[in-house]
Amino acid sequence: MPAKKDNRINDEEKLEVMRHSAAHVMAEAVQSIFPDARFGIGPAIENGFYYDFELPRSLTPDDLPVIEAKMREIIASDVPFVREEVTKEEARRIFADQPYKRELIEELEDEKVSLYRQGSFTDLCRGPHVNSTGEIKAFKLTSIAGAYWRGSEKNPMLQRIYGLLFQTEKELEEYLAFQEEIKKRDHRRIGKDLDLFIFSDLVGKGLPLFTEKGSIIRRELERFVVDEEIKRGYKHVYTPDLASIELYKTSGHYPYYKDTMYPVMKVEETELMLRPMTCPHHYELYRSKPRSYKELPFRIAELAKQFRYEKSGELTGLMRVRMFCLADSHIICQPDQAMSEIHEVLDLIEYVSGVLGLNAGDNYWYRLSLGDRNNETKYYKDDKSWDFAEDVLREVLTQRKADFEEAEDEAAFYGPKIDIQMRNFAGKEDTVFTVQYDFVGPKRFNLTYIDKDQKEKEVIVIHRSSIGAIERTIAFLIEHYAGAFPVWLAPLQVMIIPIADRHLDYARSLEATLKAENVRVEVDDRSERINLKIRQAQLDKVPYMLVVGDKEVEASTVSVRLRTGEQLDSQSIESFTAFIKEAISTRKLDLK
Amino acid sequence: MPAKKDNRINDEEKLEVMRHSAAHVMAEAVQSIFPDARFGIGPAIENGFYYDFELPRSLTPDDLPVIEAKMREIIASDVPFVREEVTKEEARRIFADQPYKRELIEELEDEKVSLYRQGSFTDLCRGPHVNSTGEIKAFKLTSIAGAYWRGSEKNPMLQRIYGLLFQTEKELEEYLAFQEEIKKRDHRRIGKDLDLFIFSDLVGKGLPLFTEKGSIIRRELERFVVDEEIKRGYKHVYTPDLASIELYKTSGHYPYYKDTMYPVMKVEETELMLRPMTCPHHYELYRSKPRSYKELPFRIAELAKQFRYEKSGELTGLMRVRMFCLADSHIICQPDQAMSEIHEVLDLIEYVSGVLGLNAGDNYWYRLSLGDRNNETKYYKDDKSWDFAEDVLREVLTQRKADFEEAEDEAAFYGPKIDIQMRNFAGKEDTVFTVQYDFVGPKRFNLTYIDKDQKEKEVIVIHRSSIGAIERTIAFLIEHYAGAFPVWLAPLQVMIIPIADRHLDYARSLEATLKAENVRVEVDDRSERINLKIRQAQLDKVPYMLVVGDKEVEASTVSVRLRTGEQLDSQSIESFTAFIKEAISTRKLDLK
Repeated sequence: MPAKKDNRINDEEKLEVMRHSAAHVMAEAVQSIFPDARFGIGPAIENGFYYDFELPRSLTPDDLPVIEAKMREIIASDVPFVREEVTKEEARRIFADQPYKRELIEELEDEKVSLYRQGSFTDLCRGPHVNSTGEIKAFKLTSIAGAYWRGSEKNPMLQRIYGLLFQTEKELEEYLAFQEEIKKRDHRRIGKDLDLFIFSDLVGKGLPLFTEKGSIIRRELERFVVDEEIKRGYKHVYTPDLASIELYKTSGHYPYYKDTMYPVMKVEETELMLRPMTCPHHYELYRSKPRSYKELPFRIAELAKQFRYEKSGELTGLMRVRMFCLADSHIICQPDQAMSEIHEVLDLIEYVSGVLGLNAGDNYWYRLSLGDRNNETKYYKDDKSWDFAEDVLREVLTQRKADFEEAEDEAAFYGPKIDIQMRNFAGKEDTVFTVQYDFVGPKRFNLTYIDKDQKEKEVIVIHRSSIGAIERTIAFLIEHYAGAFPVWLAPLQVMIIPIADRHLDYARSLEATLKAENVRVEVDDRSERINLKIRQAQLDKVPYMLVVGDKEVEASTVSVRLRTGEQLDSQSIESFTAFIKEAISTRKLDLK
Repeated sequence: MPAKKDNRINDEEKLEVMRHSAAHVMAEAVQSIFPDARFGIGPAIENGFYYDFELPRSLTPDDLPVIEAKMREIIASDVPFVREEVTKEEARRIFADQPYKRELIEELEDEKVSLYRQGSFTDLCRGPHVNSTGEIKAFKLTSIAGAYWRGSEKNPMLQRIYGLLFQTEKELEEYLAFQEEIKKRDHRRIGKDLDLFIFSDLVGKGLPLFTEKGSIIRRELERFVVDEEIKRGYKHVYTPDLASIELYKTSGHYPYYKDTMYPVMKVEETELMLRPMTCPHHYELYRSKPRSYKELPFRIAELAKQFRYEKSGELTGLMRVRMFCLADSHIICQPDQAMSEIHEVLDLIEYVSGVLGLNAGDNYWYRLSLGDRNNETKYYKDDKSWDFAEDVLREVLTQRKADFEEAEDEAAFYGPKIDIQMRNFAGKEDTVFTVQYDFVGPKRFNLTYIDKDQKEKEVIVIHRSSIGAIERTIAFLIEHYAGAFPVWLAPLQVMIIPIADRHLDYARSLEATLKAENVRVEVDDRSERINLKIRQAQLDKVPYMLVVGDKEVEASTVSVRLRTGEQLDSQSIESFTAFIKEAISTRKLDLK
């Protein structure tokens, strides 16, 4: 039953056919250069195509333009793609020298084998293809990689050439520019260029060391979120980074997170472990004395170090590390307080994200992750609590008129959750924060309160983060801003650039004035050309440059240049100081 | 050759004799109550005396007044102490029923044995004693404890009664009051009373959990020291709490601190350890790129978690813990920059201590800890560097006109140091901060810089803390202030106490005004008597109470009561807000 396809799908299919045809043309080009080449397969892929070859020598990047030029010749000659059907026996003969093709032929079930030929090149292929090589549009060969035949290490390693192909040259260029931008924005690269953090072999993998500059960003984020949470009624605490294994057995983390937990450290009478989670630490604080209904909701928060032993292959800069600092919290409350508490949590998340320049809808969206009443292994059995909790979360999102998706079978063991999903600059989706409803932890730890009626009752817990794991948030922000942070986060906020040595005294007095107001400021007092100093400050993404020369000294003013190259009005130092103080204290996103 | 003794020594000796005599009197009293008592020994000790007994039943605190009363009878009867000399044989007969005394007799070398007798009680004793029981002055029995005969677990457990004895009743009372004050100021007790921190068996020994209130104090201290250090040119960083064992082998910590380091955690390819020290982490940051002389001094600082596995018997509240947060720093510089750097470090330490209410001379003093050129096991062999470094440290202290003592053989392995010595409230001396000169670490890590002459040269390192380990500093401050912290550290700064419910609205508006200025404020809105609320706020050591009633509402004023019970002038809320903001931001020590 053929469905009616819309144009977009039609275009996508056409593009796929063209990409596949380009792979054949590339194979023909390679054959013309390496007559002894043996061919693997050459499919269309997202954004382009590839083909695997066995060649008499290793390819180098210099080969790509040569192959590409040959391809353009073939395309210019506009020869037709011709389909043929032959018997397996004929096919075996045609591909006598092509062991990989022969292997594929033997696996075909049909006795008839389909071939495609253009010019001097014939391939075993189901098609379809474009009518003629001239139809092939905007393409570019991009890279060479090794690939085992059929993906198995037991097979020979072939050489794979990747190509891009789009409908138009403009699209191709845009795609290339975007890829270039992704590379430029890679937080590992910017982190190195701007000297924000380092890794050390002696310290170990997945354990970043923050330099002075990276630490400024981290401290600003940490203080911002702690102060904001305290303002909103959280009790911000400090609990130990390690605890007895008994704590994690009680919480249930031990068997569950065992694979990524660091091993037990046994000394004297105790078996200690680095914590994979903060929850049971906060429960111990709550349990340290009897609690009354008057103390609820009891919102405990912490900038909590957490330790998980990720596999070395999964470590990625600051995104995936082996120890991270989570702005964690556990809201201990009555079930009927959950709805308003979750509203307040989402208010906080939206506020914090907004300050960082990220907005619901544009930069992130909500996902309601639900359990499965029939899966008692994956989800704690308590249908009534699941129904209640899922209704609460759905109702909150509905009341907020949030655009959210529901995801079946994505809940935690102990209850449903709201995930905040974000796409990074390169387009990869990830859960950055989560708000979880937990009715199991309170049972394990016997978390109760004395209600108005003097009866002891069980609480529920809401697990949440606000700004996520500081390391990952920094990685995300580096890529989001390409290192050009808003002024409150910028490690250096103002660079004063005296034009000549005789302006140095004035520069120093400006520096002192700004420092007194806690502005992070430096004077570039090197004997270098002024343009070089400006260029350096721009490379370092310093938000504001104060270039001072005779005119400024005479008039007691500053000439303000932004890192974007734009110029603000010349103004008094008092005016600029007031301006930047305001920009910092309000955490302004733009520089003007 | 008898030396001329001064009166003080004379008095001390007299007191010791009297204390010893009181022990004999106590033994007589015990004998009168327990005729079958067997006697151990009964010496004078600091501030008093004790005697060990074997008795037919366990003593309870209720026995002490009875024994004490009997002693007073004996003293009132004013019987003489009589010395006798007998042969060992006679002594054996006299102490036939006293196995402990017999044991002592057998160990005497002399054939003559000295006895002392008062009233019906005779003891084996060298003396001397007072002439007569009536000379015994102000005393008090204080406690009972178990004590093995001659301190060995293999021997029977005897019962020891402790007593105090002073020249005058006034001295005794003062001493008792001071002991009471020490108990009251014990940071473990105040920490519990004021709900500052807890311990949890499930988390583990020596791992405190800071409550909301304790965390406020901790955060204030941390931010204060970080901001102050940044102001003074420190680069404040974040480095990992754990690292590969290779790092600590390179630094030399691994063999040296092995006993108190947590065990290795081996996962995948790496052997990781919790850090016992921060130094090598900071060295890795320094080494991450080539450094020029222009970058020196390079002052790296961190609020660094450190992990040492103290024996459970040595753990004491927040004073000795198994994980602590040190305001640590390493100043990497040229040797000829060391002197000015150490001056600046001492400036910082004196400033920070001053803000906490502690002053050089009154509360702490300096100790210059020196090495020993002939001990190559304990001290790195490099006489020239030792001479240079010791001269630098001594010169700094001399230039500052600091009153310091020199301590031989107290240096670190890698160089001499200045220790800052403090006595806690109970009189125990401890090194609270240290400033160490290190010429060994730079060699191990090859820490160098390119000098003006383009040559690569070795740096030296100054290790220092400013506010010490946060946990211990908090313990110290709790005891120093008996929980009544200066306003900037007080968890709750203002308690508003409405006299009746009709004053609640006004109280709430005051609360909002103060909160907007980041003052930590609460309203005691309970329906309780006003005096009870005031008493509670005083017990909680809240610096300021604003009691508001009809008069205050009408005149838009506040009546300010201090936790000391003193009263400030009635004033407008604007005036009080300005006053307390100023007190907080300047970290004022007194409340007025």
